[in-house]
Order: sequence, then C-alpha cells, then structure tokens
Amino acid sequence: MTTNGQWRLKSRPDGMVKESDFEYVEEPVGSPGDGQILVRNLYLAFEPAMRGWLNDVKSYVPPVQIGEVMRASTVGEVVESKHAGFAAGDIVSGMLGWQQYAVADGEPGMMGRLTKVPEGVPPQLVLSALGGTGMTAYFGMLDVGEVKAGDTVLVSGAAGATGSVAAQIARIKGAAKVVGIAGGPEKCAWLRDEAGCDEAIDYRNEDVGKRLRQEFPKGVDLFFDNVGGDILDAALLNMAQNGRVVICGGISQYNEKELPSGPRNYMQIVIRRLTVKGFILVDYFHRAGEAMGELGQWVAEGKLNHAEDIQEGIENTPKTFLRLFSGKNLGKQLLKL
Amino acid sequence: MTTNGQWRLKSRPDGMVKESDFEYVEEPVGSPGDGQILVRNLYLAFEPAMRGWLNDVKSYVPPVQIGEVMRASTVGEVVESKHAGFAAGDIVSGMLGWQQYAVADGEPGMMGRLTKVPEGVPPQLVLSALGGTGMTAYFGMLDVGEVKAGDTVLVSGAAGATGSVAAQIARIKGAAKVVGIAGGPEKCAWLRDEAGCDEAIDYRNEDVGKRLRQEFPKGVDLFFDNVGGDILDAALLNMAQNGRVVICGGISQYNEKELPSGPRNYMQIVIRRLTVKGFILVDYFHRAGEAMGELGQWVAEGKLNHAEDIQEGIENTPKTFLRLFSGKNLGKQLLKL
Repeated sequence: MTTNGQWRLKSRPDGMVKESDFEYVEEPVGSPGDGQILVRNLYLAFEPAMRGWLNDVKSYVPPVQIGEVMRASTVGEVVESKHAGFAAGDIVSGMLGWQQYAVADGEPGMMGRLTKVPEGVPPQLVLSALGGTGMTAYFGMLDVGEVKAGDTVLVSGAAGATGSVAAQIARIKGAAKVVGIAGGPEKCAWLRDEAGCDEAIDYRNEDVGKRLRQEFPKGVDLFFDNVGGDILDAALLNMAQNGRVVICGGISQYNEKELPSGPRNYMQIVIRRLTVKGFILVDYFHRAGEAMGELGQWVAEGKLNHAEDIQEGIENTPKTFLRLFSGKNLGKQLLKL
Repeated sequence: MTTNGQWRLKSRPDGMVKESDFEYVEEPVGSPGDGQILVRNLYLAFEPAMRGWLNDVKSYVPPVQIGEVMRASTVGEVVESKHAGFAAGDIVSGMLGWQQYAVADGEPGMMGRLTKVPEGVPPQLVLSALGGTGMTAYFGMLDVGEVKAGDTVLVSGAAGATGSVAAQIARIKGAAKVVGIAGGPEKCAWLRDEAGCDEAIDYRNEDVGKRLRQEFPKGVDLFFDNVGGDILDAALLNMAQNGRVVICGGISQYNEKELPSGPRNYMQIVIRRLTVKGFILVDYFHRAGEAMGELGQWVAEGKLNHAEDIQEGIENTPKTFLRLFSGKNLGKQLLKL
C-alpha cells in the first residue's frame, strides 16, 4: 500500500499566509470506484487567487474549509481508471489539490473535472501558458480589454504567469507600445528580452509614477492590472482619455489583515472617462478550446514565450505557495512531485 | 451707470469650502464691443462638480483662478447686443458666473457660449432638468449605463438635480425596480411620491447595506453613483453579477483635505464581473439637442418631475453653494437674482 501525502488547511491565515496555516498528513491512497479515476499528481500549480480561497467569505468559488486538502490546479498521470473516458497512463489536468494522489470523478463540475492533455504537449504547459493563467490572460486581454492594434498597453505583475502572457498577447495583436511592471532587474530584463515588452518598470527600484509619465506621454489606452494598491493608483493618474482598465487581480491586497483602502485616485475614472472591468475565468470555460488552440499555436510559432519556476517535493508545497507573495517567481509557479 | 456685483475666488478652500473663500466685489457694468452681448443674469446654478474647479489641479476644465469671478451656469436676459444672433430681451443660458451682469462673446468655446432659451420654457428649467444636470442624467443613464427594461437600478444622491432625473429615466425606460438613496425623511418621501422610486433609503437614519440586501436580494444591475465613499462601498457589495456602475460624481469626497481612501470593496469588480464607467458631460455637448428634446417631452408629458431649491439675492451666493455639501437642497440648487 502506498501513502498519499497531503497538505490540508489547518487554520485561516490572519494577514500574510504562513506555512503553519497548512498541515501535512499522510493517508492510504484511495481506490477508484465505478466511474472514478485514480491520478498521481505530477505538478501542482500556484496562483495568487488561491489566497482568496482561504478566507471564509462568499466569493466566486466556495472557501476551502479547515481540514480540507488545499485546492489547486494539477496535472497528473492516470494510475487506474474505472471511467470509460480515461485509461492508465493518460496525462490529465484538473483541480486535484495539494496531494500526491487523488481519486477523481469523471466530470462533477469545475473542481473534479479532468481534461486529457494531448500527446506531445509538455504537461506543465497546461498549468501555465495553456492553462488557467494563460487563458485568464487570453480572455482578459481579448474579450475584456479588447486590445487592438495601436493601443498603448501597461501590464502590472508582468513577470507573473498571467501578466507575461497578457503582455505578449498585446504585442501579438499589434499594440503600439507594451510596458510591463515587475519587481527587480532580473524580471525586468526578462520582460524586455523574452516577453515582448518595449520597456519594463522595476517597482522596487524606480518611481513608478515618474516612469509612467515618461513612457506614456499621451496616456495608457489599456491597463491590465494584477496588483492593485499603489500601482493601480499610479496607473489611474496616467490613463488616456477613454482608457480601459482590466482588473484581473490585486496581489498587493490579498494578505492584508484589514481591507486596504481602495484606489484613492478612483475619481480619475470620471475625469478620464475610463471603463474599468473585472472578470473571472470560470465564465469563459466554455471557450477553453478556442483559447488553448490559439495559445498553443502562438507557443508553437515561437510568438509566446513562457517561464516556469519549478520547485520540487511535496514537503515544499506551502513554501512554494509563499513565493508568489514575496515575488520570488518569474513566470508560472509550479511544484514537481 | 449700474454696478455689477460679483463673487470672485479669494482663496483656494482647504477642505470644506467656506463663504470666506469668496470675495464680493462691485465694478461698473461692462459695455459690449462688436460681436458681444451684455447679459443680466436671472438665475445662477450650483453643482457639486464646481467644488473641483476650486482646486489647483489639472482636470477636465481648468481650475478657477484666484481673483476670477466664480464659474457657474446661468440664465439671463440680453440687455444689449452687438451680435447678429442675439437681441435685447432674449433669454439665454451660458456659463457667466457668479455675477449680476456679464459681457459675453458669441461662441468662444464652452465657457462663454450662449444658447437661446426657447419661448415658453421657464428659464430655470434650462439650468435643471433641461440643463447640464438633466443632460448628465440623460447620457449617464442611457449611453453610459445603458439602462434597459427589467434592470434593477440604484441611484445615490437621488434627491439631487442629476440623481432625481436619473432615477426617473430608469423608471421611464422600464426598470424593474428603482431605489434612491438620499438624506432625511423629506427627501425620501419625495423620491417615492414624486421621483419614480419604488423605495428610498435614508442614509442618515438607516443602515444602507442592510436595506440594499433587503431591496435587492438578487443584486443591483445598474448603480448610478453621485456620492462615492461608504455608499459606493455598500453598493459594490450588493451588485448583481455582470452589473454596471456609472460613476457620475463623488460628492462625499470633494471637500476632504486629503485624498480619501478609495472604494475598499473594489475587488468586487472582479468577483462580481462588474463594469465601472466614468463620463463627463462635455463629451456629449454635440448631442445636447437630442437630450433637451427628449427631456423636454418627458417634462411636458408629466413623466419627469423636477424639484428646484431657489434661494435669492446675490449676497447669498456662496451660502447657497454650501447648501449642496450640507445636503440642504432637494432638487436643483438655484439662486434667483
């Protein structure tokens, strides 16, 4: 009998999430019943939005409960299948959580649904450029932001998994200028050299407002925000008239104990006649095929670069999650099991 | 020779605007040169946005300078005309400021442009329901908010000149439910009895969040905000999925010394997939005829009620302006000269 190492939510984080908010547990690997599939996870994926799932508040998905295995996107290999649609050896993506093994149902909704990864596609790619983060960038830029040729585009959190794809989609679609904001010279160099950005702003070492005024003398047509806080406020003061702001996320806000003050410059929405839109990927799941097809083609054509930060070992799972909030990851944060 | 009493900006307000920020001056009435028109003002109009014009910051119009006559919308009667388009006795609207008389040019842009008031139209109506505030509600509800039959609609500052027209336009367009927020039982009664609201929320005496949850169990489809602050935050927590927020103004913010914290609940824009839009009336001036035509028809048909709070006497001008910020006015704040 094999054991299944799991990380379960032990306590709700108070402010910054800590390793001790999770508890490592081992239990016997489960047996698939009729219609079920036993999967061995190969990679776990980490996203800033997962921080929100730890709070006991109503949101677009239910919170993770104390004692539950932490929810997360995964890819794995089918070990045993009692479901006609899957066979041992299939590579599958799903949301099987922070554990080495999981028994999945066929398609009981978003959380347990498995998708086969086509042969020839590196498994970790369906967690990054072709996965939730890539699709978030895809629909956020194209459907919500309506990026078009000639736009001046700003992306915050641009060295992250979603931001880097968003910046490159703007480039592919003919944006006049693409500027990414990230933390540190290494990430900024990568944005310029690999991720289609004309310029990069290092928010840790530069005056973001000053750089925005320099880079966008006529204002930003489209701002794709993953960060919120001071960066959103600086961007609002540098939007072009009739500019669009896509609120994809707000990583600067997720670990605050008290609800932080909102964007102080929000009256710029009026003064500059802005349109600010939010969105959630789940609303676009029915178009996942379209997104994965186009994203996959861009990857194959060499138009879409992607970076992955791959940590290893189930014991390092919470530590890997925390890398997102200290800004350690360049590109998609993954853990290999 | 007649004297022209004027109120000029004496000092920039520090926080709440005060009467002493303005200075009363008398000077001889000017003489119109070729192409100019001498107008005697009959009514001065007051809007919350005028508070923003007193700050020395770049915005959608230049700030009023120290020593300048305070900018304001007006209606008046032509006393003497050396312009082919105007004759003595014409009733004209324009932005002639806080003064008894003004020499206006024909059409040198927004500030000095005069528009003839058609015969039979009460002059003060072109400062309220058929003027800037009515048109702001018109374009804000129809073009920006895209109100449609079946929408659940919330309006803040609903007993004000713009809010009350906005609420009634929602009613006219077949909204399923229209709720207004205002301060005090008198205004709330007026909203229910005269201004097309199904319900009114008295923010001074009621828990706005609790009432919103009661009145909108399925959420607000369209929120037309004139207030900002706590009311915007409460509304964000009660928006329907894919709801629209029109930011028309933020009167709760205008007199703060420090830039207030923005909407703390702004991440609801993501969670609820909201679209938040700002706008400025000047972008719609080319369609003023359309708006005034339709608004005028609704007034004539008895579908659009309007209230005016009319103070009197040039000496009371700054005091009348301050009524806006203590919430004294029901409907359009005017001063009769």
